[in-house]
Amino acid sequence: MSAARHVPIRLGQVGGGVGAFIGDVHRIASRIDGDFTLVAGALSSTAAKAEESAAALGIAPDRTYSDWAEMAKAEAAREDGIEAVAICTPNHLHVPVAKAFLAEGIHVICDKPLAASLDEARELQAVADASDAAFVLTHNYSGYPLVREAKAMVARGDLGQLRVVQVEYPQDWMTDAVEKQGVKQAEWRSDPERAGLGGATGDIGTHAYHLARFVSGLRLERLAADLSAFVPGRVLDDNAHVMLRFEGGVKGMLWCSQIAPGHENGLRLRIFGDKGGIEWFQEEPNVLWHTTHGEPPRRLTRGGPGTNGGGTRIPPGHPEGYLEGFATIYADAARLIRARQAGEEPPEGLDLPDIRDGVEGVAFVAACVRSSGRDAAWVELDR
Amino acid sequence: MSAARHVPIRLGQVGGGVGAFIGDVHRIASRIDGDFTLVAGALSSTAAKAEESAAALGIAPDRTYSDWAEMAKAEAAREDGIEAVAICTPNHLHVPVAKAFLAEGIHVICDKPLAASLDEARELQAVADASDAAFVLTHNYSGYPLVREAKAMVARGDLGQLRVVQVEYPQDWMTDAVEKQGVKQAEWRSDPERAGLGGATGDIGTHAYHLARFVSGLRLERLAADLSAFVPGRVLDDNAHVMLRFEGGVKGMLWCSQIAPGHENGLRLRIFGDKGGIEWFQEEPNVLWHTTHGEPPRRLTRGGPGTNGGGTRIPPGHPEGYLEGFATIYADAARLIRARQAGEEPPEGLDLPDIRDGVEGVAFVAACVRSSGRDAAWVELDR
Amino acid sequence: MSAARHVPIRLGQVGGGVGAFIGDVHRIASRIDGDFTLVAGALSSTAAKAEESAAALGIAPDRTYSDWAEMAKAEAAREDGIEAVAICTPNHLHVPVAKAFLAEGIHVICDKPLAASLDEARELQAVADASDAAFVLTHNYSGYPLVREAKAMVARGDLGQLRVVQVEYPQDWMTDAVEKQGVKQAEWRSDPERAGLGGATGDIGTHAYHLARFVSGLRLERLAADLSAFVPGRVLDDNAHVMLRFEGGVKGMLWCSQIAPGHENGLRLRIFGDKGGIEWFQEEPNVLWHTTHGEPPRRLTRGGPGTNGGGTRIPPGHPEGYLEGFATIYADAARLIRARQAGEEPPEGLDLPDIRDGVEGVAFVAACVRSSGRDAAWVELDR
Amino acid sequence: MSAARHVPIRLGQVGGGVGAFIGDVHRIASRIDGDFTLVAGALSSTAAKAEESAAALGIAPDRTYSDWAEMAKAEAAREDGIEAVAICTPNHLHVPVAKAFLAEGIHVICDKPLAASLDEARELQAVADASDAAFVLTHNYSGYPLVREAKAMVARGDLGQLRVVQVEYPQDWMTDAVEKQGVKQAEWRSDPERAGLGGATGDIGTHAYHLARFVSGLRLERLAADLSAFVPGRVLDDNAHVMLRFEGGVKGMLWCSQIAPGHENGLRLRIFGDKGGIEWFQEEPNVLWHTTHGEPPRRLTRGGPGTNGGGTRIPPGHPEGYLEGFATIYADAARLIRARQAGEEPPEGLDLPDIRDGVEGVAFVAACVRSSGRDAAWVELDR
Repeated sequence: MSAARHVPIRLGQVGGGVGAFIGDVHRIASRIDGDFTLVAGALSSTAAKAEESAAALGIAPDRTYSDWAEMAKAEAAREDGIEAVAICTPNHLHVPVAKAFLAEGIHVICDKPLAASLDEARELQAVADASDAAFVLTHNYSGYPLVREAKAMVARGDLGQLRVVQVEYPQDWMTDAVEKQGVKQAEWRSDPERAGLGGATGDIGTHAYHLARFVSGLRLERLAADLSAFVPGRVLDDNAHVMLRFEGGVKGMLWCSQIAPGHENGLRLRIFGDKGGIEWFQEEPNVLWHTTHGEPPRRLTRGGPGTNGGGTRIPPGHPEGYLEGFATIYADAARLIRARQAGEEPPEGLDLPDIRDGVEGVAFVAACVRSSGRDAAWVELDR
Repeated sequence: MSAARHVPIRLGQVGGGVGAFIGDVHRIASRIDGDFTLVAGALSSTAAKAEESAAALGIAPDRTYSDWAEMAKAEAAREDGIEAVAICTPNHLHVPVAKAFLAEGIHVICDKPLAASLDEARELQAVADASDAAFVLTHNYSGYPLVREAKAMVARGDLGQLRVVQVEYPQDWMTDAVEKQGVKQAEWRSDPERAGLGGATGDIGTHAYHLARFVSGLRLERLAADLSAFVPGRVLDDNAHVMLRFEGGVKGMLWCSQIAPGHENGLRLRIFGDKGGIEWFQEEPNVLWHTTHGEPPRRLTRGGPGTNGGGTRIPPGHPEGYLEGFATIYADAARLIRARQAGEEPPEGLDLPDIRDGVEGVAFVAACVRSSGRDAAWVELDR
Repeated sequence: MSAARHVPIRLGQVGGGVGAFIGDVHRIASRIDGDFTLVAGALSSTAAKAEESAAALGIAPDRTYSDWAEMAKAEAAREDGIEAVAICTPNHLHVPVAKAFLAEGIHVICDKPLAASLDEARELQAVADASDAAFVLTHNYSGYPLVREAKAMVARGDLGQLRVVQVEYPQDWMTDAVEKQGVKQAEWRSDPERAGLGGATGDIGTHAYHLARFVSGLRLERLAADLSAFVPGRVLDDNAHVMLRFEGGVKGMLWCSQIAPGHENGLRLRIFGDKGGIEWFQEEPNVLWHTTHGEPPRRLTRGGPGTNGGGTRIPPGHPEGYLEGFATIYADAARLIRARQAGEEPPEGLDLPDIRDGVEGVAFVAACVRSSGRDAAWVELDR
Repeated sequence: MSAARHVPIRLGQVGGGVGAFIGDVHRIASRIDGDFTLVAGALSSTAAKAEESAAALGIAPDRTYSDWAEMAKAEAAREDGIEAVAICTPNHLHVPVAKAFLAEGIHVICDKPLAASLDEARELQAVADASDAAFVLTHNYSGYPLVREAKAMVARGDLGQLRVVQVEYPQDWMTDAVEKQGVKQAEWRSDPERAGLGGATGDIGTHAYHLARFVSGLRLERLAADLSAFVPGRVLDDNAHVMLRFEGGVKGMLWCSQIAPGHENGLRLRIFGDKGGIEWFQEEPNVLWHTTHGEPPRRLTRGGPGTNGGGTRIPPGHPEGYLEGFATIYADAARLIRARQAGEEPPEGLDLPDIRDGVEGVAFVAACVRSSGRDAAWVELDR
């Protein structure tokens, strides 16, 4: 997984200018394995913002667009045009943008939910099915190694015949009417024009639902839902209680909420069969609980004993996130190097381990060895 | 933090060919923020292996070296030569390699521990101090946002006057004599020629020690250490018990072990002062516990309420690691796109969310809204 | 709370012979604070079993009954008759037994659920209301200090206006058809004749429902329920999904299950209002999470900082259960003392701390002081 | 375990008047299994306080003493004299009191640490060895079922050959100079006259040390200790760092502290051998972690799968502490019953589940069944 390929895929991006949460996420995700290189973008519909973002990202001016329709055509016409596009716009634009790029044979990586309405979604499906280009939807939680492990466990019958699926996704960031307080993320998410039919259901309920389907492998047949908009003035749901009936008599519940104080991003899945149960929680993604009925619960860790080790970049115990801590050292190193190159003072507040820390470390080891050699006598550190 | 700069820094790498744990980590970390681009490497001292690794990483043949000394000179001579080098060799090579690149004015990012002996470490310090090039040591745990938060809390007196520092770093991967069973990572780490003075103390004790110093801001004055090599035939320590005395009367303990079954990478730091205490655990890096004496413990999360939010790339609740799950979707998308481009079938085992999942999601939301509109009646999913 | 009163209340017990789970629980609970003394019992409807149990419990033969109706009359007629009775029978007997004792003016402490049908329940309510005797139902989870703390927090508005109540109670002990495998607890619980209308709903759903009501202070108005009997041949529900609508627009979900592998007794309550949220989990009853929206979650502990300290017998950090560990030492001491009194060898397997352990402990302290006085030199233990 | 025996053992108590933490604990512990009955006491050396406490506990005036030496003689002379005595005084009195009662052939249950000095401890050992009476020291943590389970696991070789023992016992209640602020518990514990040689080492270090010995089965040979008194003016240690060397080359560390903010009673034991490791934490006493090297960690629960189930009073999932919640319901019931008997209003603040809650519960079950029978339609609750 970790070996980058020779030539990265040329990637364009629509929406998600610098500072947009999900735009950044797509960019970083595309870089981690070195599989993509970002070369074009229509990062905002406001020309000035689009240019500023593109410049900050090192996108050439002649591949900086403010109109995604134009971008699709122009890139398709270039020899070195983009091979794939990442769509990071508000929900209502997913379908038209995707159609424009698919029409040019450009592969699409699109954020969720797919569309603002079911008709539109089906329309896009017809287009995607007819196209040679790939269409990938970023239900990213299915990318966690232990989520895939869980799916494999269910598929090979570790839980026996499934009975109950419990999935929940509580958040608290919309507890207050933040959409009226200038929080952009909240504004479009609570606007039916841009978000579509569902509020919490569309934004996070679709993730929870996908996760339940992905791991269980089950098709949902019926549901009974109780949606609420608790915050005064809010139109779309901010809390949903749903009872589920899957094929084969499996039953479930789904709770998603954006008004549950104390919960940041609490996506949790539990599945029970007649032989065992599993539990996975997104805020501790390196752990998967598995109980075979009648045995003690086992705490599986990403890549650890009892797992197939698939999909991991680093050894067990280094949580996913380890790489990001490591990357912060590199990012700070880049700031330091650039300052040196510019003949400037190191940026203020930079707190990088340096040669002195290295000497300290060796002095520590040397002192440990010396003390231990003297029956654990106290020794001074020699620096 | 997330806005990549125009032009990435040209990076070379010494050691850490494809498949080496820490080599991969350096590469991924260097890519995450788009600050570096890997253009040269002496990835192995065996020419064939060096070439194979470089090719897999897209490094041009004329910048693929098997001799790091030659690489330093050759790169320094090029107009487009590397600006920085990442040193990922076994410990005993850190110093000579670093000296070679510093001599050419190339910035150095070096893995730890700095050196195999204290004399060597000091020698390198003299060279680094005399050089215009930057020297960064990857004590990567100091890159975690909440570790930096902890440091800031101590510095501004949240804990009052410090009294006790407890740091531990248990692992279990060397419980058996794995160095005799073909585990490369264990081979050089248990060989005094390549690892230096310390076994567990050098490999992970230095991390624990750095973390304690980094967060507490304290200088260690004396220590008393009891080192053991429990595995028969092992020469270097695989378990160390150390009592610490810091400046200002602060006392501490450090335990590091590579033979503690049940612990993967359990770096944990606790610091206590006369006003409060903190605790951070590397396997749950998104959480920092803080207790003001006489109040209930508070669970701080990365970027969450009560923190300064520094150093984070994504919002609270999306654990560090979220990006890596996201990246796996991108990596799989790249595999799919490449297969499409080659006119091949999609790679086997690929399990990407696609257009059908998108339609499913919208159908789910539509059904929720429909059911809720009918007083939570059961409704079929319309697909 | 801990000061026992002069004269314990004379208690009788119906049902719950030696070895019955809930019978033992009632007896131990009645002894802990010294408020009751067990003096009479109809512990089984089988005379021989009733006698055996009573004898083991030290109940006098003339106050040992096999017929609870007779017991009610006989005890009421005695000068030293019981003042209160604990009813620990299967569900279908709760009402007739309670009526018999209330009719005699004897206070009733009754297990739940109250009755096998709603009509019967109402009938008993009429009797209880007309009686001078007290009627207490052992919804015991409301006895946990932090559950009461939670109730007080909600009542004084710490959470603001309530919005969502989530309560769940998963168990796994009926995952298999244990009622056909000789498990007595399962037999009557899955028999509609003895258990009443509900399976899991009656047995544990009523606890979950009471807890939600108790803490929230809310009246439930409507519900929509999806009950299942997953185990082949089972008649009563073993899993229930319920959506709730409380007064004042508060919504909720309740899940109870006896077929959820990995869950022993997972009663969990979460309540969210527009100002904050709380969470309590029965398997860690000494912890109550409280989040004021916009602040870090606080981990309240029983009797710890930020609590009112009510209802606790021992200081924070000594979990409820500490007393039981302590009691085991006493129980073992009793076995040892009885053996000594009988001139017998100590019972096999007894593992009590004794005088040698005491000397060891003092030797340890003395060695610590000695070593510390010599700058942490190694010292031998002096025994 | 739960079947009480016919005739409880007659118990006396020295020290630990009403309100004293450990005095209450001994009394409750002695009652839980019905093995003891408290009939005599010298609960304070101040006559008035001794009488008040005894009265509150229902001890007869003629068996209420203010002088423990007199009590020993008087009780020994009675036909119905005490068979055992519980010693709950400050440390310096343990030895003389124990000797007085042992001299009369009365069994002794004594709190720890055994003595204020090693000489005294040995002296008592000689007396105890020569006596027919039993001597039990309340190292109560060895009474937890999972601690005994852990011991059995080590003994049967589940961990292989032991290598490392880590034990710690942090508390925070003496972070400030509480001994000067009227906190009685702190006063005598920080007074060398009454506490003996050790502060934290004597008070909690001895518990940690006993636990390590108890579970590991190992004899300690040498130690190196660094004791500190961090709080200004404090004479005895409030923090201790100790390195341990057990027989057979096993090494360990012990940390005990009373100045570690955020820790209430954090006794934690970890033991590692060449085949596996275990971890037990006093604040979650119902859980024992066990890892066989190379397998996922298993979470054993008290009485749950994979345990021998010994020493438990209630089923898995009902944490130790469940009984205490249950007892609170009984205690409140006693208050209610006594009020009824006295013709008084129920005590204010009483919050007991009653007949209405019972009807509510049955109404809930009935509504669930009704709704489920109508395909989960919303139904009103029928009350």
